[in-house]
Amino acid sequence: MTNTQSGHALREIAAAFGYAVEGLDATADAMITGVAGLDDAGPTDLTFLSNARYAAKARATRAAAVILSHGVSADGIPCPVLRAPDAYLAFAQVAQWFYQSPLPPPGIHPTAVIAPSAQIGQEVRIGPYVVIGAGVVLGDRAALYPHTVVYDGARIGDDCVLHAHVVIREQVELGRRVIVHNHVTVGCDGFGYAKRPDGRWEKIPQGGRVIIEDDVEIGAGTQIDRASVGETRIRRGAKLDNLVQIGHAVEVGEDTLLCAQVGIAGSATIGSRVILAGQVGVAGHLTIGDGVTALAQSGIPNDVPAGRQVAGYPAVDRRQWLRVSAAQAKLPDLLKYIHALEARLAALEKAHPTE
Amino acid sequence: MTNTQSGHALREIAAAFGYAVEGLDATADAMITGVAGLDDAGPTDLTFLSNARYAAKARATRAAAVILSHGVSADGIPCPVLRAPDAYLAFAQVAQWFYQSPLPPPGIHPTAVIAPSAQIGQEVRIGPYVVIGAGVVLGDRAALYPHTVVYDGARIGDDCVLHAHVVIREQVELGRRVIVHNHVTVGCDGFGYAKRPDGRWEKIPQGGRVIIEDDVEIGAGTQIDRASVGETRIRRGAKLDNLVQIGHAVEVGEDTLLCAQVGIAGSATIGSRVILAGQVGVAGHLTIGDGVTALAQSGIPNDVPAGRQVAGYPAVDRRQWLRVSAAQAKLPDLLKYIHALEARLAALEKAHPTE
Amino acid sequence: MTNTQSGHALREIAAAFGYAVEGLDATADAMITGVAGLDDAGPTDLTFLSNARYAAKARATRAAAVILSHGVSADGIPCPVLRAPDAYLAFAQVAQWFYQSPLPPPGIHPTAVIAPSAQIGQEVRIGPYVVIGAGVVLGDRAALYPHTVVYDGARIGDDCVLHAHVVIREQVELGRRVIVHNHVTVGCDGFGYAKRPDGRWEKIPQGGRVIIEDDVEIGAGTQIDRASVGETRIRRGAKLDNLVQIGHAVEVGEDTLLCAQVGIAGSATIGSRVILAGQVGVAGHLTIGDGVTALAQSGIPNDVPAGRQVAGYPAVDRRQWLRVSAAQAKLPDLLKYIHALEARLAALEKAHPTE
Repeated sequence: MTNTQSGHALREIAAAFGYAVEGLDATADAMITGVAGLDDAGPTDLTFLSNARYAAKARATRAAAVILSHGVSADGIPCPVLRAPDAYLAFAQVAQWFYQSPLPPPGIHPTAVIAPSAQIGQEVRIGPYVVIGAGVVLGDRAALYPHTVVYDGARIGDDCVLHAHVVIREQVELGRRVIVHNHVTVGCDGFGYAKRPDGRWEKIPQGGRVIIEDDVEIGAGTQIDRASVGETRIRRGAKLDNLVQIGHAVEVGEDTLLCAQVGIAGSATIGSRVILAGQVGVAGHLTIGDGVTALAQSGIPNDVPAGRQVAGYPAVDRRQWLRVSAAQAKLPDLLKYIHALEARLAALEKAHPTE
Repeated sequence: MTNTQSGHALREIAAAFGYAVEGLDATADAMITGVAGLDDAGPTDLTFLSNARYAAKARATRAAAVILSHGVSADGIPCPVLRAPDAYLAFAQVAQWFYQSPLPPPGIHPTAVIAPSAQIGQEVRIGPYVVIGAGVVLGDRAALYPHTVVYDGARIGDDCVLHAHVVIREQVELGRRVIVHNHVTVGCDGFGYAKRPDGRWEKIPQGGRVIIEDDVEIGAGTQIDRASVGETRIRRGAKLDNLVQIGHAVEVGEDTLLCAQVGIAGSATIGSRVILAGQVGVAGHLTIGDGVTALAQSGIPNDVPAGRQVAGYPAVDRRQWLRVSAAQAKLPDLLKYIHALEARLAALEKAHPTE
Repeated sequence: MTNTQSGHALREIAAAFGYAVEGLDATADAMITGVAGLDDAGPTDLTFLSNARYAAKARATRAAAVILSHGVSADGIPCPVLRAPDAYLAFAQVAQWFYQSPLPPPGIHPTAVIAPSAQIGQEVRIGPYVVIGAGVVLGDRAALYPHTVVYDGARIGDDCVLHAHVVIREQVELGRRVIVHNHVTVGCDGFGYAKRPDGRWEKIPQGGRVIIEDDVEIGAGTQIDRASVGETRIRRGAKLDNLVQIGHAVEVGEDTLLCAQVGIAGSATIGSRVILAGQVGVAGHLTIGDGVTALAQSGIPNDVPAGRQVAGYPAVDRRQWLRVSAAQAKLPDLLKYIHALEARLAALEKAHPTE
């Protein structure tokens, strides 16, 4: 991960974030031109160690410098160390000096089809074949890659980035700095039907709103439904991975992480700072409290109180699930064992009748 | 959910569907301008109560009127009641008076690329950058949002609605009134390979047909495969939610509901009026009978007879699954209990030898 | 599956692949105009039997000829037999004589927007509204269906086929003969954030590479992430079905099959010739050895040695999982049985005290 610039001195990077440098003598410095993983880093790259399992790789790195968290030993590290409270966070911050995702060129491509009633902000970047419907409001510095489609009446805040082939449906609102990756739909119809006496399904019109608050990021292929009435809301700072399903009238709390292929059924409420790992499913009309975490593939059928860790199908407390999983593994042997007990019991009953 | 019209009298709505009105004196009426949920409804909105858990909300609503099913108590409801056989169905019907999804403007946008051999019906709505291939037949009043792509030889019936970024692949047939949401592909290649002696995979050409019958609705991001030979068919009135996977040569029966992220493997046959909840997986080459329901995340490896309710992985009868799940939760304690039994048995054996 | 050509003699087909023909007298031949399934084949179609469960259908077929593997009985087959080492592989090969997926017309559609710095190969097929960014290298005979978007700096090898609405993100590399179906993104951002002291998530810039090697095929709706550092790599000949999630820095081995809706978390390494069935989930930072197979919906939390078959959640050896699943089904009855044992034991204890 390297840009075309000439680089930054390690001391300059450290000073910018208030981090200490270790292992450099007072007059020397190291020039950093990029960031890289422990394996790949070369002599002008900055790298980081945040997972103890990779400590041996850190001792073998060819990097110019390594970022270490406070308290992590620098023994055997063959290069200067940039010491930070949290090495991974420091890496995230420093990496932004060296890499920004490319944006479409400034201006509005002549092939964009923009309704006359749309309001377009300042300094936008609108790529080829973008389509913007009637009454749309597009904030300043918004970047729309090619083939983005914004239906009538949607509002998109300042500094949003919509990648190629994103669709923002009618009346949807995006806050500021929302990043939406490719093939996402925000505001497709909820899955709502009423059964007719003849057994056929009558479609419930889906006229509700979808609100995506500031600083949300939405992964490629994720689909977010609108409701029939009421609203679907993704709160400030939540991050959704790829291929996530958000049902109608769902609420996702602040700074919550939904990993890839998670599915949330209609009218569920997910609290703040929740982490649902990959392929977790959440049933409709329930509440998951703040700070809950669920292991991958968990199926959550009921409310979960704040702060709990859950796992399994149906999901239970994580420690209970680990105990049950361990016990299950012994189940085939247990059956044999119980039959042996029964045989011993029968022998005793025969030798010593109870009456 | 409100349109720009001036509204309808409650008695007019009731009369149109043959529903009774309660709680209005003979000379009065209520003017309805929209529909809304129990929480959000204002003094000119019609709302509904279909789930008993929300009865308290109905007693606190500010709505102009509430739709109730026959037999549901109106005690404490602070407004007139529209009485219907099924409140949810009545809501679905009434909501259509007040909300229709917006359509692309009538006519063919000048940027649409339409092959000369395509046959385009009357009163179509074709948005910017739509691409329609050779030999396509497009029915009357079909609405194609921007960026829809229809490959050569596909046939699309009257009154279909294809949302932005839908792809209809070669030779696919859609019936009438089919609604397809964003980022759906109908007719992508099935996943079929034969193993070569060198361990590499030889692609099986996928030249089969895909038929989507009348009144099917397909949720955003769903992918429907074509087969190598034979056909994939979604029958009349089936509804597919978002991110559903339909394998090659699958058949889905009439009025069946497939919830989000369901996956159906190749050559499976799903009956009519089946309901598969979210994230259910169905193995290939099996048959699920009419009226079957499967709980969320079930994994179905074998045929399921008509009318059954199944759950679990591997899926079994739903009541059996509930019993097994309950028993599993006791498993760690059971192990301790059995070891205690063994100790008692050993003590008995020691005190009273069997020989 | 029939093309418009006039067909091929059965003997010609057999000779081309070195297969034997049985049941034709020396002077006769059969004219084949297409391939079809056992049920649908007509009197000029070639069909095949590869699954013993369909043997009865083979005896009732109306086909011109049936492909059978060596050793499979032709008893009762009412037509000539084409005898091959592997009937399914032979069918795959022969089917390619009769069916090729349609390609976009040769040439570059005038609506394609191609950056001046892009290098475009010979004999390409580029459909309407394709967008190709700066510095892209596009190989010979590459076929890009309408609305394909290729971000800056991507490289696409000879003979690749990109279907409508595919997105190839910045700097991604595709080898030769890669087939990508609709709504796929290759190179969307990995899901990487570091936690800030205030609980908010700091985005890790995702500047890593994605490499798709030769002869890979990627199903519709699949999303493949780039990493922050390092690379994501899909090796030669791997086949990914629809709606698959590939996390950042994942490696998928040669000739591996990932079925629909599989999810692979970040930094996992999947070996060669692995088969993961539908909806399988693989945790991050683990290694799955060559030749492993996992049953549908398995959840794999740990490394799996080469050659193993696994199943379940958490995934264990397949035979162990079958034993555990069978034992689980007996669990509710087991509880009753154990309580009955306890009662017998208590009766013995009462009749014969241990002291």
